[in-house]
Amino acid sequence: MKTIGIIGLGLIGGSLGLTMKKSKDFKVIGFDLNPKNAQKALELGLVDNITEKEALLKEADIIIVATPTKASISVLKEALSQIESHQILIDMGSTKSKICEALKNHPNRKNFVASHPIAGTENSGPESAIEHLFENKKMVICNETESDKKAINTAKGIFKTLKCEVVYMDANEHDKHLAYISHLSHICSFALGLTVLDLEKDEENIFNLAGSGFSSTARLAKSSPEMWESISIQNKTHLLSAISAYMNHLSNLKEIIELEQSTELINEMKKANEIRRIIKN
Amino acid sequence: MKTIGIIGLGLIGGSLGLTMKKSKDFKVIGFDLNPKNAQKALELGLVDNITEKEALLKEADIIIVATPTKASISVLKEALSQIESHQILIDMGSTKSKICEALKNHPNRKNFVASHPIAGTENSGPESAIEHLFENKKMVICNETESDKKAINTAKGIFKTLKCEVVYMDANEHDKHLAYISHLSHICSFALGLTVLDLEKDEENIFNLAGSGFSSTARLAKSSPEMWESISIQNKTHLLSAISAYMNHLSNLKEIIELEQSTELINEMKKANEIRRIIKN
Repeated sequence: MKTIGIIGLGLIGGSLGLTMKKSKDFKVIGFDLNPKNAQKALELGLVDNITEKEALLKEADIIIVATPTKASISVLKEALSQIESHQILIDMGSTKSKICEALKNHPNRKNFVASHPIAGTENSGPESAIEHLFENKKMVICNETESDKKAINTAKGIFKTLKCEVVYMDANEHDKHLAYISHLSHICSFALGLTVLDLEKDEENIFNLAGSGFSSTARLAKSSPEMWESISIQNKTHLLSAISAYMNHLSNLKEIIELEQSTELINEMKKANEIRRIIKN
Repeated sequence: MKTIGIIGLGLIGGSLGLTMKKSKDFKVIGFDLNPKNAQKALELGLVDNITEKEALLKEADIIIVATPTKASISVLKEALSQIESHQILIDMGSTKSKICEALKNHPNRKNFVASHPIAGTENSGPESAIEHLFENKKMVICNETESDKKAINTAKGIFKTLKCEVVYMDANEHDKHLAYISHLSHICSFALGLTVLDLEKDEENIFNLAGSGFSSTARLAKSSPEMWESISIQNKTHLLSAISAYMNHLSNLKEIIELEQSTELINEMKKANEIRRIIKN
C-alpha cells in the first residue's frame, strides 16, 4: 500500500486526504504548520496519522503540497531537495508560473508534477473538507514535459482515484486564463461585499432585500483572505490586466446607463448573455 | 371563487399563476403582449385561460401586473383608470419610486398596492416559471399608507398563498437599497461575462477552467436584457451611485495588489468576509 503525505490540511489537502482514505488503496499521513489544523484533520478522519514534516518527507511515496500558494515555493524547494528518486511530489496551488519557474532547474524537477484542481468552495480549513470535492472536476497539469513519465503516471493515478479529468496546459497560459476565469471573480466579489457592507449600515435591510442573485455574486467574498492575498500577488500581472479589462466594460455600461442609451445597453447585455454557452446550469 | 388576472406571463407572472392555480382557491386568467408567450403559458398550465387585456381588466377581482418595469407605468395607469372600486391592482416590478410617483395622485390610487417579490432566477419567459418560486421569500410592499386597508389585506392574502413574508418600505428607500443589493450585482455580472467572453476567444479554455466560483459570479450575466435595461434606467440615480462606490473599492483593491501591500489586502478581504453574517449559505 502506497503512502500519501499531504502538507497543508485545509479545504484542498483535507478533501484530498478524505477521498484517498475512503478509496482504501492508500495510507494517508498529513502535516500542517498549524498544529490545531493538523489535530482537527486527524479528528475529522481526513488523514490516518499526523506527523512532522521531516518524517512525512521520508515516509511518503507521494507527497502532495496543498499549502497557501505563498508558502508553496519554499515548501516545494525543500521537499524536492530531500526526496529520493522513487518519491513523487505534486502541488495543488492555484497559480503555476512562479512555481514552475522557481523549480525549472532543480536537479529533481522530473519528480515534480505541477497541478491545479478546478475545485473548491468559499470555505477554508480542515472543517470545510468534503469527500467527492474533486469528482467530475478538471485537474490541470502544467508543463508536463518537465516531469518524467513515471511522475505523470503516478499523479494521473491519484487524479483517477479523485475522479478528476486531467487537462494539460502551459503554466503561463494557465495563470493568464485563471486570472480571468477565477481570480477576477474573487476580486469582484470581495469588492461587492465591501461596497454593500459599506453602504448598508442598517443590516436589517440587507436581510430583507438580499435575494439569490446577490448571494450568488457575493458568495466568494467569504473566501480566505490569506489564500487570496497570496494568489492575487503571485498572479499579479495577469490579474491586473483582467481587472483593467473588467473596469473598462463596467465603465462603458455605466456611461450607457447614464446616457440612457437603451439600445446599446440591450446590445451589451445580449453579448454578455452568450456566457450561457459556457455556464450551462 | 375570486379571479386573478395576470398581465405579463414571464418568470414572475407565470410562477405566480402556477402557484395560485395549484392552491385551487383562485381562477387564474392571463394576458401577455406577446401572443406566443400567452399561448405557452396556457400550454404549461400557468393560467386557466388567456384573454385580451380589456376583458381581463373587466373580469378579474385582483389584477397583477408583472410586465417589464419599462412598460408597467403605462399598463398600471391604464388599468387603474378602468377598474371598479371592488377591484385591486398589484404590481410586481423591481423598481418602485417612479411607479409610486406616477400614480400618486390617481383617483384610484388606494386600490393599488406597489409590491416587489425578492425572488427570481436568471431565466425569463413563461418556460422559466416555477411553482414555489416565492416560498419563504420576502415580498416588499411600498408606501402602504397610500393603499387602503382592503387593498393591502387582499394583497396580503395573495402573498400568504404564495408563502411570502411581507415587509414594508418607502419606495425610494427600496430603490436605493435594491440598487446596492441586487441591481449592482447584475451589472457586475454582465461586465464579468463581457470581459471573459472578450478575452477567452478560445472557448475550450473557458470550459476547462471555469469552476463553481466563476459560474456563481457570472450566472446573472444570463439575465434578460430587456428586463435589466429597463430596471437599470428606471433606477439610474441609485444604480450609478452604487456602481461608483463599487468601482472605488475595486480600484483600491487593484492598487493594493499592484503595490503588493499584503497586509492591507488581507485586511480588506477580512472586512469583505463580514458578508458571512448576511449570506449564511
